[in-house]
Amino acid sequence: MAFFIKRLAVVGVGLIGGSFAQALREQDLVGEVVGVARSQKTLDKARELGVIDRGTLDVQQGVIGANFVLVAPPVCAIVPMVQQFAPALTRGAVVTDAGSVKSSIVHACEQAMPDGCYFIGSHPIAGRERSGVEAAFPALFQGSRTILTPTPRTAPAALEMVRVVWEACGSQVETMAADHHDRVLAATSHLPHLMAYNVVKTLSDLEQDIQAEVFRYAASGFRDFTRIASSDPTMWRDICLENRDAISEILQRFRRDLDELLALVSQGDATALHAMFSRSRDTRERVLRENKVLRNP
Amino acid sequence: MAFFIKRLAVVGVGLIGGSFAQALREQDLVGEVVGVARSQKTLDKARELGVIDRGTLDVQQGVIGANFVLVAPPVCAIVPMVQQFAPALTRGAVVTDAGSVKSSIVHACEQAMPDGCYFIGSHPIAGRERSGVEAAFPALFQGSRTILTPTPRTAPAALEMVRVVWEACGSQVETMAADHHDRVLAATSHLPHLMAYNVVKTLSDLEQDIQAEVFRYAASGFRDFTRIASSDPTMWRDICLENRDAISEILQRFRRDLDELLALVSQGDATALHAMFSRSRDTRERVLRENKVLRNP
Repeated sequence: MAFFIKRLAVVGVGLIGGSFAQALREQDLVGEVVGVARSQKTLDKARELGVIDRGTLDVQQGVIGANFVLVAPPVCAIVPMVQQFAPALTRGAVVTDAGSVKSSIVHACEQAMPDGCYFIGSHPIAGRERSGVEAAFPALFQGSRTILTPTPRTAPAALEMVRVVWEACGSQVETMAADHHDRVLAATSHLPHLMAYNVVKTLSDLEQDIQAEVFRYAASGFRDFTRIASSDPTMWRDICLENRDAISEILQRFRRDLDELLALVSQGDATALHAMFSRSRDTRERVLRENKVLRNP
Repeated sequence: MAFFIKRLAVVGVGLIGGSFAQALREQDLVGEVVGVARSQKTLDKARELGVIDRGTLDVQQGVIGANFVLVAPPVCAIVPMVQQFAPALTRGAVVTDAGSVKSSIVHACEQAMPDGCYFIGSHPIAGRERSGVEAAFPALFQGSRTILTPTPRTAPAALEMVRVVWEACGSQVETMAADHHDRVLAATSHLPHLMAYNVVKTLSDLEQDIQAEVFRYAASGFRDFTRIASSDPTMWRDICLENRDAISEILQRFRRDLDELLALVSQGDATALHAMFSRSRDTRERVLRENKVLRNP
């Protein structure tokens, strides 16, 4: 039997990499799956779970002979890893990642590709509350969106292959420029996450007498609002480092709006406060009405 | 049969006032319920639903002969309303409110009481996603918390009566000083609400090209985070006006933390970013573990 992907290399066998391999296996799209991880324990576990056929700790070894490579380690490790294994790629190989920041990654990885090999940036927007290969399941990407970020240098055939693969995983694929992606995600995802972390920080720094009570009264509003402050600190550190410009820009916009709001509160400007709250409420309700909210965050 | 409250006056027959009357009726604690509203339609509806026995548009008329008065109009209307009906109160009447801000209200209402009448500030922390008397139901306060804010002038017997009444509604009663209440609520409730409104505002002001996409990618993280931005603009305007000092203070603290975060992002300070995110995550998880999160927001 001829497979769409004869040999798949998954560099970073965690929730995303593991689920990706499982989903493609279920669709009978892959022949062999080779896993690369930093610990033998992860590889053993992945093999035990049937996620990979064989594993290696040597990333160059792992990609030899693969015609498709998914790179899914923590965001900051993507570029160094791709640079490390690139020389070992087999001609014709298509490489994609799963990072939630795209400009810096796509730029560096595209440059690292040897002749006849292709890098396409992917961002599968899928839930990550748990992590590790034990949490992987083939339906992770069902109903999610994946954004591909081709560049002027992207070969259409390689882009098409990556699209087919994500669609086979059950994801709805869209394309946009990498810097546009980074600005959109800075606004939609990075800003709310950072503000949730910041609210919790502000409350943690209150004087002891009031702090105890503050947290005692932290009811379901607080729980919902700060749910995303329970995300992985390493992932968010990496996102801040990799998407520094777009995040700085949106935080500055937010701060300007905060300054205005503070002025309205200090001045007791009833009319302007009401207008601001009404407009935000109307915007939110319109957005949720007009946009089908997808299952995965 | 002798009732604990021979005649209850509910000034402002909405979700809170209506549910309060229904809960006390269910417990057989009230004789007659008199409703005061701004429109005859509301009074007719309330009577139809069996929430009140009779209604009036005249607030002075409404409180005559009542030995317990609940004042539950929008926050900014509480003080003017109490000042208006105070001269008509019957000696011995106990008056309480349901406002989510306490200092300014308690101070003004206490002063407005004629000799032999008592004002005790109450803040029932109960859900308010819907409003109006049609939304009222007797179990609204079950499992909620109600904060009472006595002052040095408060008569212990009146405080005790208000406590018994809220407990009969199914609420767990606690007491604290009014200004302490306002600082606690500014941090726990007002800060998250205002930041949710502010995030939506920042996103609404993005350039048209990116804005459409931002809202298209607004997934469940955005939905949870900004849920509270769908709250009633009038209520939040009033809260900002009535709790101006505590809100300004917490917003300034938040802004200082935001400035620090912005600096860490701009500088790409990996260690400090990781430390900040870890600490916030740990704090949030500790808080949710240690504090029984109540059903009502």
